[in-house]
Amino acid sequence: MKEKAVCIISGGMDSAVSSYIAKVIDGYEIVAVHFNYGQKTEKKELECFRKIAKSLNSIKNYELDLGFISKIGGSALVDSDIEVPTGGIEEGIPVTYVPFRNGVFLSIASAIAEKEGADAVYIGVVEEDSSGYPDCTKGFISKFEDAVNEGTKPETSIKIVTPLVDLKKEDIVKKAYELGVNLEDTWSCYQSEIKACGVCDSCRLRLNGFEKASLIDKIPYQ
Amino acid sequence: MKEKAVCIISGGMDSAVSSYIAKVIDGYEIVAVHFNYGQKTEKKELECFRKIAKSLNSIKNYELDLGFISKIGGSALVDSDIEVPTGGIEEGIPVTYVPFRNGVFLSIASAIAEKEGADAVYIGVVEEDSSGYPDCTKGFISKFEDAVNEGTKPETSIKIVTPLVDLKKEDIVKKAYELGVNLEDTWSCYQSEIKACGVCDSCRLRLNGFEKASLIDKIPYQ
Repeated sequence: MKEKAVCIISGGMDSAVSSYIAKVIDGYEIVAVHFNYGQKTEKKELECFRKIAKSLNSIKNYELDLGFISKIGGSALVDSDIEVPTGGIEEGIPVTYVPFRNGVFLSIASAIAEKEGADAVYIGVVEEDSSGYPDCTKGFISKFEDAVNEGTKPETSIKIVTPLVDLKKEDIVKKAYELGVNLEDTWSCYQSEIKACGVCDSCRLRLNGFEKASLIDKIPYQ
Repeated sequence: MKEKAVCIISGGMDSAVSSYIAKVIDGYEIVAVHFNYGQKTEKKELECFRKIAKSLNSIKNYELDLGFISKIGGSALVDSDIEVPTGGIEEGIPVTYVPFRNGVFLSIASAIAEKEGADAVYIGVVEEDSSGYPDCTKGFISKFEDAVNEGTKPETSIKIVTPLVDLKKEDIVKKAYELGVNLEDTWSCYQSEIKACGVCDSCRLRLNGFEKASLIDKIPYQ
């Protein structure tokens, strides 16, 4: 029997590629996990999650509501009082940072992994070519993995796997094509659900990745 | 201005004493956090949380719904298919263990601490005299603290404080009396909300603590 991996799948490009690596390259059965947390593009991301999970032939899906994240607030992604910046990527930690979001996501995914007897948790964080979020670094992931294995049952052993952490966006786009990920079923825009805005940090990183990979992004843009 | 501490307050005895230590001994202003997660005594615990938070004169309360925990399941506390054991405390990790629950709780409390600019997160875990949960140990807390400080903004610095971790239940009962915690406003029973059952592990530990402290527990028992 194949081992199971819990894959955190946001509906974006990175987590789709990360979970294809878990399935196609690393040979896991996939437990697909998606979080709704009041982000501005929640519906579209959920729709993409379902398509990706289906294409992965996942053995179980968890769609979990984390409404408390928008109750905590403090980020342009969930707080209607804070606008998503569109002027280009700036130095430092942007206002789209959701306090310790990946810590929350990974702790829940680890709880699921312990429950399901899974061997690994896959998360599509990208360190270098990202927006400078502190919870997307190798240093954090490694310390978090230590904490998880200390705080779960002795027989539980969970690897936190970040196959994209050292990649650039263009490499992720290329990897998606290699593995047969349908990138039309992924969504990156922080603020629009029908047509991507093209100007938020996430759209800019995505478009730049396609451009450098000399490939065309077929999702609709405004 | 006083520093702020985020206190995780379940409504039980331990977290009440832990947050009184934050307030009375350590001199913090209290941000009170409570989690509803589909546990069998959810209503009663929330009622106790509100009384405790009020008595602490908390500056802000977060009552957060973590319904996803019962969706994950795997514990007698949240799963109606698994009975709460009442035959006495046994060796090993009991079926009331909720997979990585304190990991989930601490990651959310840390997110709140980062948002609120708080200095510390208090959690009332007890290592020795507990039910053998792996997420209640000093080893876990220390590694989790490392992960939090790695995965949050550079200017964020959060201590995870566990003032009860080395105490026995009788010491906690005595400490409650010293600090003026009204233990009638706390609830420990895992399965009943009107009268405590007296026979689940949590009731047994509580009653034993009162007995050894030569004090009387005034909450109603069946």
